[in-house]
Amino acid sequence: MADGPRGAKRGIPPKEDFNAWYPAIVEIADLVDKRYPIKGMDVWLPYGWSAMGNIDSLVRSEMSMSDHDEYNFPLLVPHDLLEKENRLVQRLKLAREKGVDPSELRMDEEVEGFEKEVYWVKNAGDTKLDVPMFLRPTSETPMYTMFSLWIRSHADLPLKTFQIVNTFRYETKQTRSFIRVREIHFFEAHTAHADVEGADAQINEDSGIVRRLLHDLCLPAIICKRPVWDTFPGAWYTNAVDAIMPNGRTLQIASYHHYRDQWAKAFDITYEGDDGSQKHCHQTTFGMSERLLGAVVGVHGDDAGLIMPPSIAPIQVIVMPVATHLDDAVLPEAREMLRRLKASGIRARMDDRDMRPGAKHYDWEIKGVPLRIEVGPRDLAAGTFVCSMRTGGKQIFPIPELEMYAKKSLDDLAAELRARSAELMESKMCVMDSLPDSPKELEDGLVYEVAFDGNDADAQRLEKATNLTLLGDRLEPYEDERPCIVTGKLTKRRQHLARMY
Amino acid sequence: MADGPRGAKRGIPPKEDFNAWYPAIVEIADLVDKRYPIKGMDVWLPYGWSAMGNIDSLVRSEMSMSDHDEYNFPLLVPHDLLEKENRLVQRLKLAREKGVDPSELRMDEEVEGFEKEVYWVKNAGDTKLDVPMFLRPTSETPMYTMFSLWIRSHADLPLKTFQIVNTFRYETKQTRSFIRVREIHFFEAHTAHADVEGADAQINEDSGIVRRLLHDLCLPAIICKRPVWDTFPGAWYTNAVDAIMPNGRTLQIASYHHYRDQWAKAFDITYEGDDGSQKHCHQTTFGMSERLLGAVVGVHGDDAGLIMPPSIAPIQVIVMPVATHLDDAVLPEAREMLRRLKASGIRARMDDRDMRPGAKHYDWEIKGVPLRIEVGPRDLAAGTFVCSMRTGGKQIFPIPELEMYAKKSLDDLAAELRARSAELMESKMCVMDSLPDSPKELEDGLVYEVAFDGNDADAQRLEKATNLTLLGDRLEPYEDERPCIVTGKLTKRRQHLARMY
Repeated sequence: MADGPRGAKRGIPPKEDFNAWYPAIVEIADLVDKRYPIKGMDVWLPYGWSAMGNIDSLVRSEMSMSDHDEYNFPLLVPHDLLEKENRLVQRLKLAREKGVDPSELRMDEEVEGFEKEVYWVKNAGDTKLDVPMFLRPTSETPMYTMFSLWIRSHADLPLKTFQIVNTFRYETKQTRSFIRVREIHFFEAHTAHADVEGADAQINEDSGIVRRLLHDLCLPAIICKRPVWDTFPGAWYTNAVDAIMPNGRTLQIASYHHYRDQWAKAFDITYEGDDGSQKHCHQTTFGMSERLLGAVVGVHGDDAGLIMPPSIAPIQVIVMPVATHLDDAVLPEAREMLRRLKASGIRARMDDRDMRPGAKHYDWEIKGVPLRIEVGPRDLAAGTFVCSMRTGGKQIFPIPELEMYAKKSLDDLAAELRARSAELMESKMCVMDSLPDSPKELEDGLVYEVAFDGNDADAQRLEKATNLTLLGDRLEPYEDERPCIVTGKLTKRRQHLARMY
Repeated sequence: MADGPRGAKRGIPPKEDFNAWYPAIVEIADLVDKRYPIKGMDVWLPYGWSAMGNIDSLVRSEMSMSDHDEYNFPLLVPHDLLEKENRLVQRLKLAREKGVDPSELRMDEEVEGFEKEVYWVKNAGDTKLDVPMFLRPTSETPMYTMFSLWIRSHADLPLKTFQIVNTFRYETKQTRSFIRVREIHFFEAHTAHADVEGADAQINEDSGIVRRLLHDLCLPAIICKRPVWDTFPGAWYTNAVDAIMPNGRTLQIASYHHYRDQWAKAFDITYEGDDGSQKHCHQTTFGMSERLLGAVVGVHGDDAGLIMPPSIAPIQVIVMPVATHLDDAVLPEAREMLRRLKASGIRARMDDRDMRPGAKHYDWEIKGVPLRIEVGPRDLAAGTFVCSMRTGGKQIFPIPELEMYAKKSLDDLAAELRARSAELMESKMCVMDSLPDSPKELEDGLVYEVAFDGNDADAQRLEKATNLTLLGDRLEPYEDERPCIVTGKLTKRRQHLARMY
């Protein structure tokens, strides 16, 4: 290999230049093709779609274990269903005028924003539709219309639903594969409970699911309770999960919302209580998207290409017979090893193309295949194979123990990815003790931790002074008290400031 | 059970009245909810979505074995991409004027029809889009736009792609769950080959895939080469697969098309041949949809509800512990049996609800669960369990052989469904030897076989005389010659006439 970054031959920019590396690697590694003639709507290529499908499988498995059922709702939403959503807005407006819980504010602005972001269907064939429809940006309105028909009594609760579907958002900002797109591969869980405690428990369950998924994807993340003004419309509160990308910008990869009974009141979702009266349900939602893959690509990759966490790698092990012309037994043995790997549940594939080994290595490096297993005449004679990890290093193992060492190596690689990404996150985090005189004083590409316990005006002052966005209250409790960066009051609360995607 | 049809208690009409039974059972069995406020867009409920997902899995497995890769293309198609499709139409128009292969006719009308059937997106937020877009009714245009970028040389061929996505059609006819809907759960495979022989071989492969799927779904069907005027736009010829529903109407559940190089010429899909010249690819497509589930529901169900073929049953075996209050060992044994069934790869579930066994039986009958396994104190003492088949009959088997007998019973049930549905099909088929004086002479609800070898005008005469539609030439060859029903010429060709959905 010549000087310069390892991937340079294939036109991969060095990862240090993340803003050039990311958009290049998603195409060079065959995840998507961006040449489809609508901005922000990429074609998913088989390798990318397979990785996304493996993420979906992890999610479906979590949903199944937590007794969520999979539904599929129509994509199109009649505009008149929004009336209920608008009533919700009106009521919350009134609540604000009367001066109530701040979590109920800013609804009108949000919903106006939402209507600005949808694609409209007003014509079909040469007919103008009586009721215009829009492509779902998310499914509260269609789902809760049905929930109000489905829920009658305590026996119907909890109702735990989810779907994995395409959603649409008319993005006016710059689009980026997986990160900001206009057709979104989307997961959404929606639940209804008899009381607030049921919804509280659901939020806890969601938190556990998120943590297990992050573990599988080898991604560390910041989990915050979003500030009131960044709460999802109609939500009581929003918990959000932010990954830190290598350029120091945070990427929201999941959020779960406690709705209390606010949406249920708007959509008349009620059940008959023990005393015969109609009670409103308490609801939660939980959303994730193809951004999970965006975080995986961005956090784990290196100068040579992607590095796929074994849990979602479309190909976990690539088997390469080498110098097959020197020994007729090599190819049959490689085939047998492939068979054994597959039989043990490993996603394995053979590369017996007639090419230089170096060129083959590059291909699988770019695609981030975790393990490369090579076997040649000398290995065969010794009864061993060579196992190279995509994160570096190679080892020699005995062929009879193939399955065990492959699994162990995949586990080791996942642990290595977790260590690296934790280190990356650590390196991007920084404590800010006092307000800077100017945002220019702050180092670029960092996520700041601040002690903050101020009001909305203080928060605004903080964001203005730093030119960064408040991610919200960190969920993990801190024990030590520190003075609030704006008010000086002692507080245990910690918040994060970052530049968000 | 009282007099009357077995499902009457749950409001299931007798299946004899198929046009009432079908729309009722899809909701009573929890496949879909039709109360979503857009006609022809149902909500998929977990049981229906799971059955559809199992059909998708069968399809994906066939695709994987035949080396098709799964892609995912954007839903929205810019209107200006249609220009190429329109050029194709123009060229074929010219071909017609010059008097060429009749398979190239009628393109303009078809494509006009297609524009009439799409949903249009012309606005996003409060912006009027520069280029209107439509929701894909099928994906030739978006896919072939990309194919022309992807295919460069012989090494890129064959290109074998598929996707499973939502497609849209603005149906003006009466909608019916799974059979005629406006948001369609759709499978489409698109392939490109170096020459016509490659495409021919693909059509053969598709034919094998269809036959295996029909076997899995226990559905017999008629496979025909559609008449020219019923050929898919741009296709050289169309093979179509029609199931016969209990009311005698045929339902097209799959079609596969040989495009020759017609679309490739329109979309400039070329590769460099050995002699350095640019050659056009030959293409095929293969389409199926949720209609497969519609056929399964319609063909196999009975007065008591659905009967799910084991290959796609969301629950293959329901385990019911009985009289658990009489013996503490029953519930643990039932749990162990459930565990063993699951471990052997069977989709099993336990019903230990505190209800009358009869009421439970009804539930699983309606849903068409193939096997019900009961174990109670007496069974336990004898070391046996009772296995009831949804198609009728119960047997006693030894508990130690649970897995083997469960699998055998599922196989037996599938064989029984195949025999029943073959018999149903047989009972609906009838030979027509001479043209009726009036369509009223014909018995309603039958599919007629005719010897036919006439031209388009003869076909029109035949359809008018019978008030039925020609399905096309049966693919299986017939040996005996019979006089054509219109012209009297002796012919080996056989065609079918039916009322189509």
